[in-house]
Amino acid sequence: MHVKVLVTGFEPFGEEKINPSWEAVKNLSKEINEAEIIKKRLPVSFKAIKKKLPKIIDESMPEVIILTGQAGGRVNINVERVAINVMDSKKEDNDGYKPEDEPIFENAPAAYFSTLPIRRIVNALKHNKIPATISNTAGTYVCNTAMYVALHHTTLNGLNAKTGFIHVPYIPEQVLEKTQPFMSLEMIEKAIEIAIKESIKS
Amino acid sequence: MHVKVLVTGFEPFGEEKINPSWEAVKNLSKEINEAEIIKKRLPVSFKAIKKKLPKIIDESMPEVIILTGQAGGRVNINVERVAINVMDSKKEDNDGYKPEDEPIFENAPAAYFSTLPIRRIVNALKHNKIPATISNTAGTYVCNTAMYVALHHTTLNGLNAKTGFIHVPYIPEQVLEKTQPFMSLEMIEKAIEIAIKESIKS
Amino acid sequence: MHVKVLVTGFEPFGEEKINPSWEAVKNLSKEINEAEIIKKRLPVSFKAIKKKLPKIIDESMPEVIILTGQAGGRVNINVERVAINVMDSKKEDNDGYKPEDEPIFENAPAAYFSTLPIRRIVNALKHNKIPATISNTAGTYVCNTAMYVALHHTTLNGLNAKTGFIHVPYIPEQVLEKTQPFMSLEMIEKAIEIAIKESIKS
Amino acid sequence: MHVKVLVTGFEPFGEEKINPSWEAVKNLSKEINEAEIIKKRLPVSFKAIKKKLPKIIDESMPEVIILTGQAGGRVNINVERVAINVMDSKKEDNDGYKPEDEPIFENAPAAYFSTLPIRRIVNALKHNKIPATISNTAGTYVCNTAMYVALHHTTLNGLNAKTGFIHVPYIPEQVLEKTQPFMSLEMIEKAIEIAIKESIKS
Repeated sequence: MHVKVLVTGFEPFGEEKINPSWEAVKNLSKEINEAEIIKKRLPVSFKAIKKKLPKIIDESMPEVIILTGQAGGRVNINVERVAINVMDSKKEDNDGYKPEDEPIFENAPAAYFSTLPIRRIVNALKHNKIPATISNTAGTYVCNTAMYVALHHTTLNGLNAKTGFIHVPYIPEQVLEKTQPFMSLEMIEKAIEIAIKESIKS
Repeated sequence: MHVKVLVTGFEPFGEEKINPSWEAVKNLSKEINEAEIIKKRLPVSFKAIKKKLPKIIDESMPEVIILTGQAGGRVNINVERVAINVMDSKKEDNDGYKPEDEPIFENAPAAYFSTLPIRRIVNALKHNKIPATISNTAGTYVCNTAMYVALHHTTLNGLNAKTGFIHVPYIPEQVLEKTQPFMSLEMIEKAIEIAIKESIKS
Repeated sequence: MHVKVLVTGFEPFGEEKINPSWEAVKNLSKEINEAEIIKKRLPVSFKAIKKKLPKIIDESMPEVIILTGQAGGRVNINVERVAINVMDSKKEDNDGYKPEDEPIFENAPAAYFSTLPIRRIVNALKHNKIPATISNTAGTYVCNTAMYVALHHTTLNGLNAKTGFIHVPYIPEQVLEKTQPFMSLEMIEKAIEIAIKESIKS
Repeated sequence: MHVKVLVTGFEPFGEEKINPSWEAVKNLSKEINEAEIIKKRLPVSFKAIKKKLPKIIDESMPEVIILTGQAGGRVNINVERVAINVMDSKKEDNDGYKPEDEPIFENAPAAYFSTLPIRRIVNALKHNKIPATISNTAGTYVCNTAMYVALHHTTLNGLNAKTGFIHVPYIPEQVLEKTQPFMSLEMIEKAIEIAIKESIKS
């Protein structure tokens, strides 16, 4: 069987010039454990995510969807448990949009749980000496929206795709002038690779 | 009209000898802005909460339900946005129970949003110079379970009760031997009172 | 005997409109336990401190000198142990001065220890349920300079004055739009009063 | 010219089974930029440090002394600026000793500044994309004592040795079960190597 895995990272936002999620994703091999890896860079835009992400999913029809994003200030790999139906931000997205307490979709569920094997991924990461934890909030910025949109889309359309989100820390070059935790890009890449391998296990 | 408000705090847990949520709730007046205040102390027990909290609600039939709990380490009043259908803890509850990734109820929604006016409460708190913020995770310990159980119960039974959860910091006497943020008990009491007043507004 | 206590706070700096140290000091009684309290507001200026603080001390000839300042981000009362002979800052002082690794005084000691009864003060604060700790760094900004200048001056001139520095957290009105720890102004005032009382004990 | 560099790390303490400082130091080459690297593991004992460290220095007569230690909770390489004449700890050292506010040596200076080129080291680390900062406190545990003892000994005996201390974060395998910042062992090793190279520059 030929398994397809969609893996996304984000473009930079705020004052950052790079986004470690995309830096890591773009370096992944095209094939991991015989699975085809489809890599996409997502815009940091609430509105664009709602339009583009379902199309990207429909075009690739993956069995596994792993979205990744930067979580500045978090100390380790955060495998997200849940996405909530809220957009709320004090900082503008890259389109200049700054929602307050808005639903992503009207009349949609309050939340979706990740359908990735999140506990198994965290355990596999620790087994490989990569600090990791399950996170119970993906925030209310564009990352959470992407996770919600992907899970809403696969659920509504009955797609058989394990879907979830992984937040990664800053990488060293981002924290040379601020006192913030970080993880090497190599470790982040390895973490995403391990998450892929765990997710494609039957 | 005679409005009834159910306000709960928790018993102490872990190494703490008091729980600031109950210390604050027990000091509240019996009547606030003509509303009757019904105060209850809840056990820090996943299983007991599932049994007892629905009964407490049914007995008092309140128009407003404000659950409160201690969030050690948080710096200000956290008005919770959402409760998720998960019980997960590394520390035992007061019954010695330590669930991992368990649902609170099988085949129930992933999450419920607070039906309290959370943004208005936070704004009213700040207006009164009480540091406060909306929180996007109530954790996965007994506090989150209580919030989920209350919202699930009122939703399933069509009760017309605005329902939500407020996390409060440690009080000073709890942090004399640890370097942790805190808030005075008086300020916590005032915060809960303000939350009640905002919630009973038509 | 008539004991004189010099107590100082600072003017605001950075983006703050008030400085909790001066807000607290200016509210102190003129007499505490029969000691005369002399209150002065200090400028947030490396250069002005070096000129003005020795004059203020010489004019009042106090038996106790308690300098206080704001330490945004610290969670409790920090009774400082030591001042070091360095001025180093990434942010400008109120005169636009931003020193890097400069000595306060050439050919002067690397550091001075506080001559206040710091352990006794911390214990008295805790006894009064005020969270407090001994701090081992007053930083390298103007607060540390003031502490160093006062101790250097009293030492060089053989003045018999117990001298030290107390850092205080933000007060609530400063942290309504940022997630930072804080302490009520009343508690800060009480803390300084307790520090005075402990320091004037024979 | 044949330069000798003494580099030390500590044995584990508290609940840790390894100490990243010694793990890194023991892996260093025996020769770096033509300098001979003398590596020693130090005990986490206030009393043993005072006895043994001067002997180690006298036996090797190094031109550069770089002491390193673990600073759990710190996020990056901390090049220490100053050692103070205090031993104060709430946790016992590996000999069961727990001093409170004791001087390391009676009638000795309050502090010594590092004589390493600390700013140049930090800049070189950042240039190599290793997060680093100057720290203004080495604490009051055994690390600070070691730094003070080394500087006191070289000063009293007129030894011509650049001397200082570098605190390093946890490594990944130490933080798999706690949410704490960390740095890879490889990066710590590289950081110490860079510190050595900068320190032996004429």
